[in-house]
Amino acid sequence: MKPVNVGIVGLGTVGSGTFNVLCRNSEDIARRAGREILVTHVGARRDNANADTTGVTVSRDIFAVAEDPNVDILVELIGGTTVARELVMKAIQNGKHIVTANKALIAEHGNEIFAAALAKGVNVAFEAAVAGGVPIIKAIREGLSANRIDWVAGIINGTGNFILTEMAEKGRDFDDVLKEAQALGYAEADPTFDVEGIDAAHKLTILASIAFGIPLQFSKTFTEGITKITREDVEYARELGYRIKHLGVTRQTEKGVELRVHPTLIPESRLIANVNGVMNAVMVQSDAVGPTLYYGPGAGSEPTASAVVADVVDVARALTTDPNNRVPHLAFRADSLSDAPILPIEDVVTGYYLRMHVKDQPGVLAKIAAALSDSDINIEAIIQKDQADESSPVPLIMIVRQVVESKMNGALDKIRALDVLADDIVRIRLETLDG
Amino acid sequence: MKPVNVGIVGLGTVGSGTFNVLCRNSEDIARRAGREILVTHVGARRDNANADTTGVTVSRDIFAVAEDPNVDILVELIGGTTVARELVMKAIQNGKHIVTANKALIAEHGNEIFAAALAKGVNVAFEAAVAGGVPIIKAIREGLSANRIDWVAGIINGTGNFILTEMAEKGRDFDDVLKEAQALGYAEADPTFDVEGIDAAHKLTILASIAFGIPLQFSKTFTEGITKITREDVEYARELGYRIKHLGVTRQTEKGVELRVHPTLIPESRLIANVNGVMNAVMVQSDAVGPTLYYGPGAGSEPTASAVVADVVDVARALTTDPNNRVPHLAFRADSLSDAPILPIEDVVTGYYLRMHVKDQPGVLAKIAAALSDSDINIEAIIQKDQADESSPVPLIMIVRQVVESKMNGALDKIRALDVLADDIVRIRLETLDG
Repeated sequence: MKPVNVGIVGLGTVGSGTFNVLCRNSEDIARRAGREILVTHVGARRDNANADTTGVTVSRDIFAVAEDPNVDILVELIGGTTVARELVMKAIQNGKHIVTANKALIAEHGNEIFAAALAKGVNVAFEAAVAGGVPIIKAIREGLSANRIDWVAGIINGTGNFILTEMAEKGRDFDDVLKEAQALGYAEADPTFDVEGIDAAHKLTILASIAFGIPLQFSKTFTEGITKITREDVEYARELGYRIKHLGVTRQTEKGVELRVHPTLIPESRLIANVNGVMNAVMVQSDAVGPTLYYGPGAGSEPTASAVVADVVDVARALTTDPNNRVPHLAFRADSLSDAPILPIEDVVTGYYLRMHVKDQPGVLAKIAAALSDSDINIEAIIQKDQADESSPVPLIMIVRQVVESKMNGALDKIRALDVLADDIVRIRLETLDG
Repeated sequence: MKPVNVGIVGLGTVGSGTFNVLCRNSEDIARRAGREILVTHVGARRDNANADTTGVTVSRDIFAVAEDPNVDILVELIGGTTVARELVMKAIQNGKHIVTANKALIAEHGNEIFAAALAKGVNVAFEAAVAGGVPIIKAIREGLSANRIDWVAGIINGTGNFILTEMAEKGRDFDDVLKEAQALGYAEADPTFDVEGIDAAHKLTILASIAFGIPLQFSKTFTEGITKITREDVEYARELGYRIKHLGVTRQTEKGVELRVHPTLIPESRLIANVNGVMNAVMVQSDAVGPTLYYGPGAGSEPTASAVVADVVDVARALTTDPNNRVPHLAFRADSLSDAPILPIEDVVTGYYLRMHVKDQPGVLAKIAAALSDSDINIEAIIQKDQADESSPVPLIMIVRQVVESKMNGALDKIRALDVLADDIVRIRLETLDG
């Protein structure tokens, strides 16, 4: 069969990795794809010493790749949502298939991009946008196609997981580990995107859409970062048999779809609780197969390139396929997407870890227990620690399970009104992740 | 698009699960596949109370399904390798696509079946043959298509993993747990197939072929069971920071391909060491992405059905695809398979756990250490236990790393010749599973 011509736009970390993997493994890739995959055009605003583009057309004007009549598949690896969107829309108008690693682009503009692609009969592939080299998009869209999916929970930001792992394993503080992560290149100078959960929210938005067949709705994702997690909470959680992870969770309920990123206690016996360092993992609970989990590197040059190139091979195989026979972009056919609402966080049911510093007065525990009990909230586990000295407040830690958030908010207000707290209540959501 | 007609042959555990999943989730499956998937014909020698086949043609002569001109895809779920092979070959001759969960059939007759399918231009899909509901075939063949795969290691028999987990977590004996597994229905009355590693060898044969593009070579798989693993070894392994798992390992080396199933010590920090109970997991190490892992239920009615139905959807999507554009059965095009030899176990390099009961004499440890050292084998860790009483032998446990098996055999012979052993040496292979 005739070779497939690929244009790569962006020659940064992922772009140079993609270029190099396609060159290094070209023979094995051709044995699998049944044809050669050739990089014939690179669009890059500047040279990159990590990729030897000798013999390949290189354009400083990246839009030249979208206009090149010889390019079958345009691989967008410049990142961002402005120029990238313009480039991808232009390439689609020119009848090119798209492969991208750009989670922000898909999460924020995917609905528009997929509609344009469908109208032109071209394919848009985005495996690399979630969990880097882990083929999680393929697993959910194709591997689990027999199932009604109940929920998806993922550790989908390596930087955040590195920080929480170091805090848990070495008893370090958040700020201390963040500085190391920045020195190691795991975290950006401005770490907001990672530690506040925005990056994870982009990925979770995509996971929710392919799991439940709903349009992409990034703006409705609830997002809470990990900056307020303390060493103290990590240690109490461990004492109670839990790990704290920054989890993206999306669940289909009768009332709507939950879509939320927040620090989460998970029982230590769950496999996903043991996913450490910069690694990613996504757990999927569905009706036929039950629980499955997918684990691997969620970022980096060649791990991400692995997913990009797998998409290129898939798109190449489907070049001549009737578009109706391709895997739909959001797993379900565009004309059969669901209009299930996204639930506000107040309507979400989770468990909770609560930590209070209470004044050392008689009857405090009874008052707090009564406030919870008045809201029909049952305490499942409790730790009351000795105070450091007689004048300091007493740490009181509780685990409660399965409460709707609005009810928990009400109960916490009642506790605050008791005037027994030395400072505000710390509350972290808890998921048991059983079936 | 017009519906796809499926004939299911075999209505046992997996057959009834497949039937039920296709009925229960028919709407969601059609939203994904873009057409209805209808079961129009069932071949079953007897009724099954777990599947309501009202309104579906049921034939007691299962070959009637292979002859039915209205059946597009024949789903083979009768198991075994004799009638199943005949049925599948007949259906292929009649131009039907095949989906099967039959690991023995694919491992032992896959080369012949795929050749026949290729000649007729039909597809044979077998996701359910390895690790049940975990989409590991798809992950390796498609998700990792950019990579040169270095090795694959899997816990691919749930019965064996259940037994080893119970031994490790509850300090129970092999025979005791096996009896419980039989009572729970996890293990057959004759457990040979599971505990001697034959089932795992079937699955590993398939994994090796799709990872490295080699023909299926079941008869060359080295297989060692778990029946000789004792509680004592499980406990010493744990003391040294390892878990014992029944692992299938296939590795591509310069000299050839390793293909082996045996009890294996794995560092407890590896995620796969924490895969417990009847669950399966497959770890893949490859050049671009690095390590990835896939976890889930490896057996059972609906978990296996999940993989069968996903295959049906995939095959339905590719019905009108040029066969050259389909994913090749063994991941690589049939005309480009590799003739790399399978290495005999004597040429395989692994680490080792050694346990000896030595006579309580002066200088015994020095003699043993010298025997190993003479063979250039370095001891990495050692435990010498107090003897139970003065007359009993002394337990001596050692970890060594990275020795070719033939050299280890020679060293063990030297130790045996020392006349310091109270009984024979126990040796269990060890894999660090780093990159």
